[in-house]
Amino acid sequence: MNTHSHIVYVDRDPADEELPSLGSHRTWGLGDVVAALRKSRENTHKIRHRGRIREIPSQEALASILDGLAAALFPTHYGQTDLTDESIDFFVGTTLNSTLNALVEQVRRALLFVARQNDAEHGSDAAHVARLHAQALSITRNFAAQLPALRDLLVSDLQAAYQGDPAATSMSEILLCYPGMTATIYYRIAHALYGLGAPFVARMISRIAHSSTGIDIHPGAKIGGHFFIDHGTGVVIGETAVIGQHVRLYQAVTLGAKRFPADENGVLIKGNARHPIVEDDVVIYAGATILGRITIGKGSTIGGNVWLTQSVPPGSNVTQAQMCSD
Amino acid sequence: MNTHSHIVYVDRDPADEELPSLGSHRTWGLGDVVAALRKSRENTHKIRHRGRIREIPSQEALASILDGLAAALFPTHYGQTDLTDESIDFFVGTTLNSTLNALVEQVRRALLFVARQNDAEHGSDAAHVARLHAQALSITRNFAAQLPALRDLLVSDLQAAYQGDPAATSMSEILLCYPGMTATIYYRIAHALYGLGAPFVARMISRIAHSSTGIDIHPGAKIGGHFFIDHGTGVVIGETAVIGQHVRLYQAVTLGAKRFPADENGVLIKGNARHPIVEDDVVIYAGATILGRITIGKGSTIGGNVWLTQSVPPGSNVTQAQMCSD
Amino acid sequence: MNTHSHIVYVDRDPADEELPSLGSHRTWGLGDVVAALRKSRENTHKIRHRGRIREIPSQEALASILDGLAAALFPTHYGQTDLTDESIDFFVGTTLNSTLNALVEQVRRALLFVARQNDAEHGSDAAHVARLHAQALSITRNFAAQLPALRDLLVSDLQAAYQGDPAATSMSEILLCYPGMTATIYYRIAHALYGLGAPFVARMISRIAHSSTGIDIHPGAKIGGHFFIDHGTGVVIGETAVIGQHVRLYQAVTLGAKRFPADENGVLIKGNARHPIVEDDVVIYAGATILGRITIGKGSTIGGNVWLTQSVPPGSNVTQAQMCSD
Repeated sequence: MNTHSHIVYVDRDPADEELPSLGSHRTWGLGDVVAALRKSRENTHKIRHRGRIREIPSQEALASILDGLAAALFPTHYGQTDLTDESIDFFVGTTLNSTLNALVEQVRRALLFVARQNDAEHGSDAAHVARLHAQALSITRNFAAQLPALRDLLVSDLQAAYQGDPAATSMSEILLCYPGMTATIYYRIAHALYGLGAPFVARMISRIAHSSTGIDIHPGAKIGGHFFIDHGTGVVIGETAVIGQHVRLYQAVTLGAKRFPADENGVLIKGNARHPIVEDDVVIYAGATILGRITIGKGSTIGGNVWLTQSVPPGSNVTQAQMCSD
Repeated sequence: MNTHSHIVYVDRDPADEELPSLGSHRTWGLGDVVAALRKSRENTHKIRHRGRIREIPSQEALASILDGLAAALFPTHYGQTDLTDESIDFFVGTTLNSTLNALVEQVRRALLFVARQNDAEHGSDAAHVARLHAQALSITRNFAAQLPALRDLLVSDLQAAYQGDPAATSMSEILLCYPGMTATIYYRIAHALYGLGAPFVARMISRIAHSSTGIDIHPGAKIGGHFFIDHGTGVVIGETAVIGQHVRLYQAVTLGAKRFPADENGVLIKGNARHPIVEDDVVIYAGATILGRITIGKGSTIGGNVWLTQSVPPGSNVTQAQMCSD
Repeated sequence: MNTHSHIVYVDRDPADEELPSLGSHRTWGLGDVVAALRKSRENTHKIRHRGRIREIPSQEALASILDGLAAALFPTHYGQTDLTDESIDFFVGTTLNSTLNALVEQVRRALLFVARQNDAEHGSDAAHVARLHAQALSITRNFAAQLPALRDLLVSDLQAAYQGDPAATSMSEILLCYPGMTATIYYRIAHALYGLGAPFVARMISRIAHSSTGIDIHPGAKIGGHFFIDHGTGVVIGETAVIGQHVRLYQAVTLGAKRFPADENGVLIKGNARHPIVEDDVVIYAGATILGRITIGKGSTIGGNVWLTQSVPPGSNVTQAQMCSD
């Protein structure tokens, strides 16, 4: 679903001339529908609009920003095709400049958006808005400074993919053809922004990654270097998961929450540690579901389709109960 | 795959001048290939073409229509960024008008398309075509009238998501970042069109939803309010499934058919009730596969990766057999 | 992620005039970041650039090529809406011509790209480049000649889908609404190119198919006619899998590798047969994970969520261990 898009594609209808019933006389009872929709909005969002409505970060803008960041990080793979040793730094600098200019605007919008949501009074206060603007600039600058370290981490992930998959023929194949690599690039970008105080933009990036790859990594999760997700469709990694170095996951692995404690009013308690800790050198095969704040000890192997809700010591080898065959 | 698109992107090839072998002298043996493709079409679709070929509903047009409907339903999230209290109804009205004009054309095409398929004789009969035009107008008008109630249902789904996921920080985050919410919006639109007699358009919408979210809900399924799918990749809900109120599903849950009875000629019987009934207040965890016309009783919990083919009474708690750990 | 795209979408910022802090005075410390990124590139890819950098095949171009091929194969479904018996061959011929012209360029790029990667010396040798150009032309011509046979196979897949799914109402619905059909069309195109010596382009096509459908079929896999994947999200079929005729898979089925033997240096051995052989007339239900070079005998049924790592004889019926219900 494209946000901010309301342009509707209308095909020329070659039958219109013959069949005026589909022509300009069409009416839809719009007055009643629009009034009823307004009423529905007012019932559910009583205090939302105070004059000017909040600007929402744009999914299209973020998708372009991700393309720009990927091009700046790996210019010969995601950038232009005519780069030379002479031109490549100019390309990287120019691309970064326009990308960061676009990013700061989306970060600013998201900060304002969240602030107005949490506090309708101060949200339109000019000093508060100026503070958020300064904060957006600071977040974006710090993010830019983290890019080289972020690239080094991604190179370690590339190496892990090459070493972990016998079907991989080259680093280039992994960059261009592996959904797990796309998801990891987007996750590391989102996680950096999350840590710098832009969680809403980070979540929108994880939505874009999910749509492209089928892999759903919450930007709050902490993931060490040399990380590799093979195939990846259906992988879910929750907000408070902690993953060590040299961990390999296959498709449809879930690192999720087991139960959701509620407060005395029955409202879920937000943000507490509730997802697994996966130590270094763990391999988790396709379809395994691992739930709760448990620890998978260093060097363990978790078999396909296993459902696991308790900690296992280092070096464990967990497999599913045997099949019945007749 | 984009339907109706045959424009091919050709990069300028900077090597063409040096290497004329890739230039204008290329030939592909097109005559033979085109003739063989024609023969293949004629072998498999003998009676298809009678003069003018059927116009097919357009996936691009439907994707734009979904954007327009989402913008009309939730204008501050999926619409424009500069909406004010003064302008919002104008935006909703204008967006709906152009969206419904585009929708009626796609519904008309789909009705004609299906009619010609089922009955090649009457398909080109002028009176029959006029009847289908009138039917498309009527379906679209009724659909417009249902939009406010559909929005109310979607607001109940939003509330269920907020209450059901500790990671959700706001309704806005759910609207902009949750694939399960996108899938639910598209499903409720598709289900309304399905119920009004536009099943082909409804199925095309479910294909678009699947491509964006990895969630596959047949528009024929019946789903009550306060519905929440978390993460969602790999969820499959079959044509005749019936889901109550306040039901929560996680990724990779299947509500499918167990067996497919065939008639005396070995042809599958189409359309009979063959998918589960899930009563109110049921939670189904990641990877559970529930097959056949069975009933999951009110308030039950179905654990991760369970494979279930028989009914369970209200309040059941079903989990997978234990693991082997060494 | 779009390759070759570095255009960044910048929204006009209505607040810029009021708040100059987001205006033209923004700086990002670009000099340092660009230098650090260069250093990171040089550390990891020491020998990559020798004057002109390799042109990479374009994902956008390949996506358009897939649209063009689909339109040429099934013109009334993926082509134009105004085709008649008189015009259809012209449409197919024109579409094929521009599509094959675009394809040969991507095949050429991929051959050069892989050659330079494997052999930095000969990669820029003019005679070698000319040889690769001739090879690209030959691959594309042979691919064109295979299209009619490829179409016949796809028609057998369509028939299998119609016969295998009680919810399918027509061949058209399968072509336009079934992700499994899209994945099968893309797989058969990719497999043909793989067999003709264009494995990198083939892998890029499988990435596009995965992004659209959630189905991940390695182009090296061999799959017989009358193949049907229902729903399909999360299906993974490995590089050396061999699938017979009349096989039906459901969502989240994995045909994967069990273990990856390494050579004496601990480096994975690439390319050996390590994925299952699935004989004719086998049905594998949702979530089954089948690993290793085992054989699923003709006519077997593998139940949902089964985890299977040993061969089963023809006619087997394998189901998961029973559930615990309380």
